[in-house]
Amino acid sequence: MPIRSATAIAHPNIALIKYWGNLDDEWTIPSANSLSMTLGELFTKIHLIADEQLECDLLMIDGALAPPAAQARVSQFLDYVRVYSGKALFCRIESSSNFPRGSGIASSAAAFAALALASAKVFGLPTDPQELSRLARLGSGSACRSIYGGFVEWIGGQDHQSSYAIPIAPPQHWALVDCVCVISTAHKSVSSREGHRLAKTSPLQPCRVQSAPQRLEICRRAILERDFEQLAQVVELDSNLMHSVMMTSQPPLFYWQAETFVVMEEVRRWRSEGEAVCYTIDAGPNVHVLTLAECAQKIQDRLSHLSGVQEVIVAPVGGPAVFVEDEKPA
Amino acid sequence: MPIRSATAIAHPNIALIKYWGNLDDEWTIPSANSLSMTLGELFTKIHLIADEQLECDLLMIDGALAPPAAQARVSQFLDYVRVYSGKALFCRIESSSNFPRGSGIASSAAAFAALALASAKVFGLPTDPQELSRLARLGSGSACRSIYGGFVEWIGGQDHQSSYAIPIAPPQHWALVDCVCVISTAHKSVSSREGHRLAKTSPLQPCRVQSAPQRLEICRRAILERDFEQLAQVVELDSNLMHSVMMTSQPPLFYWQAETFVVMEEVRRWRSEGEAVCYTIDAGPNVHVLTLAECAQKIQDRLSHLSGVQEVIVAPVGGPAVFVEDEKPA
Repeated sequence: MPIRSATAIAHPNIALIKYWGNLDDEWTIPSANSLSMTLGELFTKIHLIADEQLECDLLMIDGALAPPAAQARVSQFLDYVRVYSGKALFCRIESSSNFPRGSGIASSAAAFAALALASAKVFGLPTDPQELSRLARLGSGSACRSIYGGFVEWIGGQDHQSSYAIPIAPPQHWALVDCVCVISTAHKSVSSREGHRLAKTSPLQPCRVQSAPQRLEICRRAILERDFEQLAQVVELDSNLMHSVMMTSQPPLFYWQAETFVVMEEVRRWRSEGEAVCYTIDAGPNVHVLTLAECAQKIQDRLSHLSGVQEVIVAPVGGPAVFVEDEKPA
Repeated sequence: MPIRSATAIAHPNIALIKYWGNLDDEWTIPSANSLSMTLGELFTKIHLIADEQLECDLLMIDGALAPPAAQARVSQFLDYVRVYSGKALFCRIESSSNFPRGSGIASSAAAFAALALASAKVFGLPTDPQELSRLARLGSGSACRSIYGGFVEWIGGQDHQSSYAIPIAPPQHWALVDCVCVISTAHKSVSSREGHRLAKTSPLQPCRVQSAPQRLEICRRAILERDFEQLAQVVELDSNLMHSVMMTSQPPLFYWQAETFVVMEEVRRWRSEGEAVCYTIDAGPNVHVLTLAECAQKIQDRLSHLSGVQEVIVAPVGGPAVFVEDEKPA
C-alpha cells in the first residue's frame, strides 16, 4: 500500500431544507432532496492510520477511546470501505473537533465527511467529490453535503449510485452567518438515526415529503437571488414541518424545549421588526439563527441575553472537506 | 308571536378529536368529523327577547354592551334565524358566563348553543336536538357539539343538512375531568375563525384530514371501553397534529407559549410515571389536562404549582344545553 495514513478536515452543515426520513434506511436513501449551508470555522479533523497489526478498528475522540456505539458506527462505515477497496485492513481513527458535542451542531456530518476523504485516500478509492459524497452518506446521511463548501443540495435519488450531493453556490456567494444558540448540551434521548426510522409513523410525513421539492426550489432561488426574506420564510416553514412530523410520530419526538420556543418567538418578532433573521432547528433543543454577516454581532448579542441561552456559537459559510498535511506519516 | 323571550344555558366543550379547517367556510362544513366532551359546571346563559321596537340586534355581555365584532357575529347568526322563521324581528341578547373569557375554554361554543335554543323557541323553529345542532353550527362550528351532554361526535357532512352532532355516550358513562391550566388570558391575536380559513395553506392539512377518521374511531372506542391510556395517546396525537397544521400555515399560527410547552412536558412525564393524565390544546396557549375524577385533586394541585400556570379551572363531564325558567317574561 503506497499510503498508510491520511488526515482530512470537514465542516458541519446546517440544513435549510431538512432531511428527515428515508426511502431506504439501510443505504440512507432519503425520502426527499435537502439543502444545506456548510458552516465555516467549525471543523472535525480525522487522522486515519491503516495498521496491519490491528485486529479491529479503534476510534479515539479527542484523545480518548470512543464509546462502543461510536466505535461500531465507524467500523460499520469502514466495512463498506473494505468491501469496495478489497483491502481487509483495520484502522486507528483519531477524531478531534473544535466545537462542543451536543451543541446542536451535527458532529456526525463533519466527522463522516472527513472520514470519507481520509479512508478513500488510504484505501485507494476514488476521491472525486461526487464519489466521496456517496461514501460519506453511508456513514451519516447529512455527511454527503459536508463534502462541499457553500450551499449544497443532496439529490436524494433511488439507490446508492443516484444519491449524492452537489454544490449549488460557493461560500463567497452570500455572506450568511449561523448563530447557534446552545440551550442544552444534554445528549439527546432519541438519536437522529432512530428518529429517521420513526418519520414514517407520522400521519404528516407523506404531505411533508410530497411538498418538499417546491420548498427546495424556493430556497434555491432565494439563495441564488440573495433574497433573505424569502429564505427566512421557507427555512422556518421547513423546520416547523420537520418538527411537526417529529412531534406526531409514534412515539412522538419532542426536541424543542421551553427555551427553544422562546428563541423562536424572539426571532420571529425581530424579523417582524425588520431584522434579517430566521431560525432553523435540528434534532435537538438548540436553535440555529441565520442572519447576514453585517448583523451577526448585534444578533449574537441579543441572543446571548435571552434566558436559557447558554452560549452562542457563530459560524460563517464554510468551504469543502479537504486533505491536510499528514502530521504523523506512517 | 306566542313567546317573546326565552332563556337557555349551554356548556362549553373540549374537543378530543379536533375540528380545524372547513370544506365550506360560509356554512361551516368541517373538513373532518370531530369528537368532544361537554364540560359541566361551566356554562353560558343566554336570555333572548324579541322586541318589535328594536331596529337592530343588541348584544349585552355580562351587563355591558358587547364590542362591534361580537354584535356583528350574533346578528349574522340571527339573520339565519329570521330567514328560516320568516319573522323579521330584532332581538336583545343578554349573555353571561360563569367562566373567564380568554381562559382557553371556548366561550363561543356554549354561547351559540344556548343562543340556538333560545332563538329557536322565540322564533318558533324546531327544537329537536339535531335541528338545534345544525342551527348552532351556523354561529360557531363547535357549538353544534354543545347541544348534547357527555361525549359527542360532530358528523361533518357535506352541506347544512348533513352536518350536525350526535351523542356517543352520556355524561355518566365515564367520570373524566378537564383541568384547564390558564397560562394567559390575553386575547388571541388570530381568531379561531380566521385560523380555520388558514388551515388549507398548511402542506400538512391534507394528511391530517385524511387520517382523522381513524383517530376518531380509536378515540370513540377508548371512550366506550373507558381505556384511558388509549384515549391519552390519541388525544395528544390529535392535538399535536392540529398545532402542526397551525404552525405550518402561511402565515404560521403559534398558539403555544413556552409555559404551554412546560405543561405538555410535565403531563407526558407524569403519564410515563403511571398517572392517568393527558393534554389537549385549542387555539390558544392554555392547556386542557384530562384525568380521571379520582385523580383530579392531585393533578390540579400539581398543575397549579407549575411556573406560568395562573389558575386551574376544573370541569367534570357536563350535560346538554337546556331551557331554563325565563326570569324576565315579556
